[in-house]
Amino acid sequence: MLSEFDLIKEYFQRPHHATRAALGIGDDCALIAPTPGMQTAISSDMLVEGRHFFAGEDARRLGHKSLAVNLSDLAAMGARPVGFTLALALPAADRAWLHGFAQGLFALADAFNIELIGGDTTKGPLNICITVFGEVAPGRALRRGAARPGDDIWISGTLGDARLALAGYRGELAQPLDDASQRGAAARLHTPVPRVELGVLLAEQGIAHAAIDISDGLIGDLGHILTLSGAGATLDVDALPAGDVLATRDTALRRAYSAAGGDDYELCFTAPASARAAVLAAAASVATPVTRVGIIEAQAGLRLVDAAGAPLDLRLAGFDHFTS
Amino acid sequence: MLSEFDLIKEYFQRPHHATRAALGIGDDCALIAPTPGMQTAISSDMLVEGRHFFAGEDARRLGHKSLAVNLSDLAAMGARPVGFTLALALPAADRAWLHGFAQGLFALADAFNIELIGGDTTKGPLNICITVFGEVAPGRALRRGAARPGDDIWISGTLGDARLALAGYRGELAQPLDDASQRGAAARLHTPVPRVELGVLLAEQGIAHAAIDISDGLIGDLGHILTLSGAGATLDVDALPAGDVLATRDTALRRAYSAAGGDDYELCFTAPASARAAVLAAAASVATPVTRVGIIEAQAGLRLVDAAGAPLDLRLAGFDHFTS
Repeated sequence: MLSEFDLIKEYFQRPHHATRAALGIGDDCALIAPTPGMQTAISSDMLVEGRHFFAGEDARRLGHKSLAVNLSDLAAMGARPVGFTLALALPAADRAWLHGFAQGLFALADAFNIELIGGDTTKGPLNICITVFGEVAPGRALRRGAARPGDDIWISGTLGDARLALAGYRGELAQPLDDASQRGAAARLHTPVPRVELGVLLAEQGIAHAAIDISDGLIGDLGHILTLSGAGATLDVDALPAGDVLATRDTALRRAYSAAGGDDYELCFTAPASARAAVLAAAASVATPVTRVGIIEAQAGLRLVDAAGAPLDLRLAGFDHFTS
Repeated sequence: MLSEFDLIKEYFQRPHHATRAALGIGDDCALIAPTPGMQTAISSDMLVEGRHFFAGEDARRLGHKSLAVNLSDLAAMGARPVGFTLALALPAADRAWLHGFAQGLFALADAFNIELIGGDTTKGPLNICITVFGEVAPGRALRRGAARPGDDIWISGTLGDARLALAGYRGELAQPLDDASQRGAAARLHTPVPRVELGVLLAEQGIAHAAIDISDGLIGDLGHILTLSGAGATLDVDALPAGDVLATRDTALRRAYSAAGGDDYELCFTAPASARAAVLAAAASVATPVTRVGIIEAQAGLRLVDAAGAPLDLRLAGFDHFTS
């Protein structure tokens, strides 16, 4: 039988890069030597079976997504990723599952040149808790409370395909998706791409004011920026960039899932109108599409409008883990 | 109904000290400004209901223990605690449970002057994942692989009462404990005291070579030091400091539970014989008893002996989450 120590050694302990971590897996703590003068950004996300992913979810995709949602938090802060810890509760030490999970996890980690520096494994209902560490220069972090009236509101990539895929799985759609569309949308649900390069550029070059990553739906997440910034906004719902599959659906569904879908892991950020060219140049330099979708205003509240500027009442809300 | 955001605000968000964390709960990431020149020590532990604690465990004790086992890892590295993140999966947002858990958690956090800087809450089978951060000067960390032949082996505090309490709960004892004894031993199981001050002194003053915290039983944990140091040891099992309650039991039980009990969260550390006075002075200065129990040797393997120096064969092993 695979022991806890063999499990870690076989699947999670890799040759130590020694570039960032002064000491990796295998001691009581990992050690990191922070870059002099930089702040450390830290975020922790827990993924629970049946809540954040379906029971029986493909292990490789799960390895990717578990790290991706954490990297997305660093992206939303404009912090450059350094490393992460992984705490894992598993019902059993299943070799095929561990192999797939580690593959998905490390493929993404390697893409961002970051190391797994420590963690914990235990038996229990499947639960994946990752804590990521990044670095950002003092005063450069993209804080939620930093939006200012007059700022443009921008969205990276596209929204809503992840929610559409979930609706497809759940059989919630009046007009079901064909197989190819379901697969296309599902890729956005299962393997989100954290917008790390864009977030880092927006912070390092001082282009953006506030940012958040869209995990619970744009309206809910933008709401956090507004609350913490003491501001309001007008959002052009028809300007929201719908995912490739969602874009083929009717207006009502497109509006609903792009404005309040969830699981998008795109960035919503604000920047002054004077920075429009800089935003577009930064986004182009990392091949990430961005779309201007609204404006921050002094008047509190979020005003949804359609393409003609007429008010929309979508009755949408962000996702909450204890009331939904 | 208590929402996820209200839950965090009501039970886990406290006035921001601003002493260490540049930015605490409520953004995509927390920000810490590392002390210039210091390394960051990081450790992550996950506690699962039915595995690390009984179903229905008192929430206050659980809040204490969840943080204590993590601080114990910092202690074993000789790192000074700075802050921690908490990721929590809960079956329901139960106010009484949350109140108790937060009380136990913050009482210990306040005792070490550290802050909860971020985390995550979600619905799911009860699971508590804490990641702690500390600081240690480069080259000062107490690494598992740093023991040298000739080093004394030391133990802080006492061993075995936590395992004795567990045996009592499970009805494993031939001679059951009376109520007072069960309560006394159980305090060691439920509310371990991390040996942070001692670990920090041993590291900062350069007194100790290697250290580990005893979570899976001394023999298993000392084994990690020996393996990583490429060394062996002779351990005087009768010299092991038994817990107050265990000390009243027969020799066989005392040997078994002090040598391989688990859940002790004491430090096992090695230091050169020339440092004996310094070890005792450091321990006295933080009112932590320490006991010399063996010696590191060049010959591989762990040799257990009794008070007369005769070999003992205890057939004991450390705890492993996937084979036990």
